[in-house]
Amino acid sequence: MSKHYANASWDGTLVKGNGKYTLKTSGYQGSLNYSSRFEDEKAASSPEELIGAALSSCFSMALANDLDKAGSPSEKIETTAEVSLTKGTEGFSITEILLKTKGTVKGVEKSKFLEIAEKTKQNCPVARALKTNIRLEAELA
Amino acid sequence: MSKHYANASWDGTLVKGNGKYTLKTSGYQGSLNYSSRFEDEKAASSPEELIGAALSSCFSMALANDLDKAGSPSEKIETTAEVSLTKGTEGFSITEILLKTKGTVKGVEKSKFLEIAEKTKQNCPVARALKTNIRLEAELA
Repeated sequence: MSKHYANASWDGTLVKGNGKYTLKTSGYQGSLNYSSRFEDEKAASSPEELIGAALSSCFSMALANDLDKAGSPSEKIETTAEVSLTKGTEGFSITEILLKTKGTVKGVEKSKFLEIAEKTKQNCPVARALKTNIRLEAELA
Repeated sequence: MSKHYANASWDGTLVKGNGKYTLKTSGYQGSLNYSSRFEDEKAASSPEELIGAALSSCFSMALANDLDKAGSPSEKIETTAEVSLTKGTEGFSITEILLKTKGTVKGVEKSKFLEIAEKTKQNCPVARALKTNIRLEAELA
């Protein structure tokens, strides 16, 4: 088992306050505010940006491993994540994460690559820890 | 609806390769490697560190809001997250996230604070998007 640490703080009320988080390994501090999370301002980070980074990282590592295990190791996997935060009856919810991945893989057929990527999307550790809808668009470089 | 973006890449195989992620708003790049994620080395970041940052950030913002709505606005909420990644039959899984939160709140009873924090743990957007076990230890400053 491995353990991973981060912390966050928030000063004041949700709408007028502000906060920050710290990643333990690097000490990097990201800033948080209401309008960057729930509105269109993108001056600060957000929990949803971090979820996108977590899933795109996990998926890229896992796809490299799944391709390797299938006999077609990749040179590079590149993945973007777009996380949608939508207001509904329960308040704001993460309604979808769209992953777009591009694999640089020699000698693999496109259909095989797509089949493996779809399984990775279902089985990587972060995907299994999430109950939001994850949509995948995959292509070979 | 608001959208949030990040990306990641991975070069080479899972065990010998390495990768990085980028947070769109700041351009911050975090590094990724096998041993920092699955073993005890903590030189690089990990998807699980990002999940911890996402949940501690979301929880802190939401607890500030829930206290405010209950008539006891907080001055500060500070939350740490410890994310456990454990090997099992499905491979590695995020088996638990332990949140430890401390609230600086004037004039609220401890029992009321704990009751509100427990509801926040169940209802904040990131918690609702996760299907791993979340454990909470809450205290007043």
